[in-house]
Amino acid sequence: MSERLELVALPGIPEVRPGDDLARFIADAAAGIGLRDDDVLVVTQKVVSKAEGRVVELASVQPREEARAWAARWGKDPRQVELVLQESAEIVRMAEGGLIISRTRHGLVCANAGVDLSNVGDGEAATLLPVEPDRSARELRERLGTLTGAQPAVVISDSFGRPWRNGIVNVAIGSAGLEPLVDLRGQPDAAGREMQATVIAAADELASAADLAGGKVAQLPVVLVRGYAWRPSDDGAAALVMDRDRDLFP
Amino acid sequence: MSERLELVALPGIPEVRPGDDLARFIADAAAGIGLRDDDVLVVTQKVVSKAEGRVVELASVQPREEARAWAARWGKDPRQVELVLQESAEIVRMAEGGLIISRTRHGLVCANAGVDLSNVGDGEAATLLPVEPDRSARELRERLGTLTGAQPAVVISDSFGRPWRNGIVNVAIGSAGLEPLVDLRGQPDAAGREMQATVIAAADELASAADLAGGKVAQLPVVLVRGYAWRPSDDGAAALVMDRDRDLFP
Repeated sequence: MSERLELVALPGIPEVRPGDDLARFIADAAAGIGLRDDDVLVVTQKVVSKAEGRVVELASVQPREEARAWAARWGKDPRQVELVLQESAEIVRMAEGGLIISRTRHGLVCANAGVDLSNVGDGEAATLLPVEPDRSARELRERLGTLTGAQPAVVISDSFGRPWRNGIVNVAIGSAGLEPLVDLRGQPDAAGREMQATVIAAADELASAADLAGGKVAQLPVVLVRGYAWRPSDDGAAALVMDRDRDLFP
Repeated sequence: MSERLELVALPGIPEVRPGDDLARFIADAAAGIGLRDDDVLVVTQKVVSKAEGRVVELASVQPREEARAWAARWGKDPRQVELVLQESAEIVRMAEGGLIISRTRHGLVCANAGVDLSNVGDGEAATLLPVEPDRSARELRERLGTLTGAQPAVVISDSFGRPWRNGIVNVAIGSAGLEPLVDLRGQPDAAGREMQATVIAAADELASAADLAGGKVAQLPVVLVRGYAWRPSDDGAAALVMDRDRDLFP
């Protein structure tokens, strides 16, 4: 609903390790630009998980029999499969090729329950999703306020596949400060007709937009969005998770 | 993968009517900014459909018995339901409340087969999706080249719901010029590890990003994306439609 937006991948965020003060990294990286209260910071899940210590050394994992069997069948690491099963509240599909799609305790439906080997520094570890990504976003926002005096909204992003469409897109798994869903129902559209069923998942669109500026190859895990006219809200990205009884695709 | 992007909703696009030269509207609206070959223009499906005459007067529609029954049961317009059935290659779900989720001939799985009453000027008509949205995008791109000398990439967007998540997001139903899917498999990530399963649906992310700058309430159907380093491709957004036999959620 804004007419001009700018997306800037913040430079110079170092490799994040457990216990690091991620907000300080972000504040330092944004110092040249200057954070504003009306900005949005989109931060990838990976660096949030690392800072929060949601990292498991694979050597410490004892795979159950089911994990060993699945891993053997598809050439996976049984310790990773074990972590996926641990992080899953419910298995949605165990698919050809070894992919496991599950629903996490947060209600997120995604591949491998968000357990990720691909981008962890020493190669023998996995990152898990934050325990409560909305709390992670709130804490990051508060700490940024302490460090910089500005409290931009915060979105924590992760890349998810979707049914029916190829490729992954970034979605919001956590947020703080902004309305994750923008409800336009009842407002007139351009033709003056009342819109019936238009609730926009703005936090997801912010996450996707940020992926165009940051991205997986470049080490650019934080993107500043300037010019998006968000409205304040106490809701987090948990509001994006559909209630099971409303879902047409349980 | 770019580090700084700008999104600008083009001002002054008039109400589009069947037969209008949409490319000329866009060229005029972008004259102040100046189009470049490396820009992306994200255009909403609605104005493309209108320009192409994909508009049906409801008075001309004869609903079949099934459409009348479904409409009566859920308080819908039977003529709209008839158009939804006509535009569907396959019904995926007919849900509580009257929502029909179907697969269109393009392979798109969406609500009401893209048939939309909400935003048509005179109120007694419906817009249908373009017959071949990738061709629409190619034609728009070529005509822009003729009019302006610049051939930015073109993405045609529409708003879709998703399983498991609340709210709608914009996705790409058509595209021309750019790689709709960016395949990072085999490239090293920030930790030097080869990425295994990372194909990014960049055209969808562009569509979502544009929705933040344009939007349904404002009459801003065209958004210019500047600074996104897309790669040229002959593929269209049809490449985003998953083959039925690869899909885990048929």
